[in-house]
Amino acid sequence: MRNLDQHTITQEVIGRFADTPDPRLKEIVTSLVRHLHDFAREVELTEDEWAKGIAYLTATGQKCDDKRQEFILLSDVLGLSMLTVAMNNAKPPQCTEATVFGPFYVEGAPHYENGDDVANGAAGEPCEVSGAIRDLDGQPIAGAKIDVWQADSEGKYDVQRGELDHPEGRGVLHADSEGRFHFHSVLAEAYPIPTDGPVGELLAATRRHPWRPAHLHFRIEAPGYETLVTHVFRSDDEWLDSDAVFGVRQSLIAPWVRRDDGSYSLTYDFVLNPVGGRG
Amino acid sequence: MRNLDQHTITQEVIGRFADTPDPRLKEIVTSLVRHLHDFAREVELTEDEWAKGIAYLTATGQKCDDKRQEFILLSDVLGLSMLTVAMNNAKPPQCTEATVFGPFYVEGAPHYENGDDVANGAAGEPCEVSGAIRDLDGQPIAGAKIDVWQADSEGKYDVQRGELDHPEGRGVLHADSEGRFHFHSVLAEAYPIPTDGPVGELLAATRRHPWRPAHLHFRIEAPGYETLVTHVFRSDDEWLDSDAVFGVRQSLIAPWVRRDDGSYSLTYDFVLNPVGGRG
Repeated sequence: MRNLDQHTITQEVIGRFADTPDPRLKEIVTSLVRHLHDFAREVELTEDEWAKGIAYLTATGQKCDDKRQEFILLSDVLGLSMLTVAMNNAKPPQCTEATVFGPFYVEGAPHYENGDDVANGAAGEPCEVSGAIRDLDGQPIAGAKIDVWQADSEGKYDVQRGELDHPEGRGVLHADSEGRFHFHSVLAEAYPIPTDGPVGELLAATRRHPWRPAHLHFRIEAPGYETLVTHVFRSDDEWLDSDAVFGVRQSLIAPWVRRDDGSYSLTYDFVLNPVGGRG
Repeated sequence: MRNLDQHTITQEVIGRFADTPDPRLKEIVTSLVRHLHDFAREVELTEDEWAKGIAYLTATGQKCDDKRQEFILLSDVLGLSMLTVAMNNAKPPQCTEATVFGPFYVEGAPHYENGDDVANGAAGEPCEVSGAIRDLDGQPIAGAKIDVWQADSEGKYDVQRGELDHPEGRGVLHADSEGRFHFHSVLAEAYPIPTDGPVGELLAATRRHPWRPAHLHFRIEAPGYETLVTHVFRSDDEWLDSDAVFGVRQSLIAPWVRRDDGSYSLTYDFVLNPVGGRG
């Protein structure tokens, strides 16, 4: 211990976690230390770079508040969020695929009836969304709880505008007795993730664009089924092959149809996986 | 891109950094993504664990302010700080070894003359510290700038007490024409690193103690020499073999001698490495 070098220190640190009572925590912290040290050795991290890394993580934490989650955004652009989603959502191919949760979900969004307008004043082209929630046998899942949220025509979520007491473009609905839902909102548009923080600095320094293809967020929950967190993406979007957060799935792409009156419509059905898989 | 899985996503993310203009940044971010993804795959990180990790990093960032650097503390207890010090301070064995910087250094500490009392009111047993700054040939390094800082008898640094406008137990001195320095202060005592934040939670959950063996911090700077950041540790300390931040070096341990009048004295000499190594 009194003469650790850059190689022997790793085993000493891991050994210090030997008495961790929770075996899962012990497994995670042991693996974290090994990979963190391997990273530092592989790049031969300098003390100046270490200090910059500390400052970067600090700034990322301090950018977070009740309307902004910069560490989720960092996880998103490093692909860690989508990797975690992919590892934890293996299911039969007929089920709707999951994708990233993102940093803009808000608990306690207003409740709406089918047919209501969840835009609630958000700017954008009018759009009607409808579909059904079904199980693997095609049977309706009556009463499924459906959380939707989206950005407005300028690519901003309500929370980014600071309108915490006036939710726009988000709401909670329930599927009817035949598993169907429908609501009015505004057309989803492509938008850049927020670039006025440390994640924006990283993207600029690495010449990565911040754009996400247009999408509508869904979180669908029903007793006996795995909760589904996903998006539906607009099929005509130019960023589908370079989503800044790696969230696109071919099966989640759908057409928003332009009607004669200039409004849009989207129809998309969701298939939930039973808890514990199909029995 | 539209059907990435938990394995193929890593290469896609790395590819997205391909246009990074700074080759060193590209190297670091590429290695970081690979190790971060390998970690998540190795432990099969769940979505709940991911969310806890995001919340933990956020809380760590938000614990930081002008008197507290929780990310440095986290790096310290994970051994990353000492690993970085070890990688970047290879030098001839006659040179004084480096150790961790720690989170309690403050820029712009008060200047003192040799013989002054840097305690400036800090509680503790009186202690006199003296020594010399030399080069590899044993020649004095006249005028070397010496930053010292230490905790008081309760194991607290001034900044932990919120006394930003009344520095205690820290100061800047200069070696005299023969490379010698000496100052009065208080006896260094063992102390626990701050446990009222996320790092404290981690230590508690993993049954690790937070103690550091008693030590005195030095940062020594002179033109033509590598700046030395180090501690001197008290030889009779019970935590020398289990320092919470892995900073102990056998060569940095020295006796604090108790005098007949109850005060203490420490003598320690430092040897600096020339910039670029010995020519």
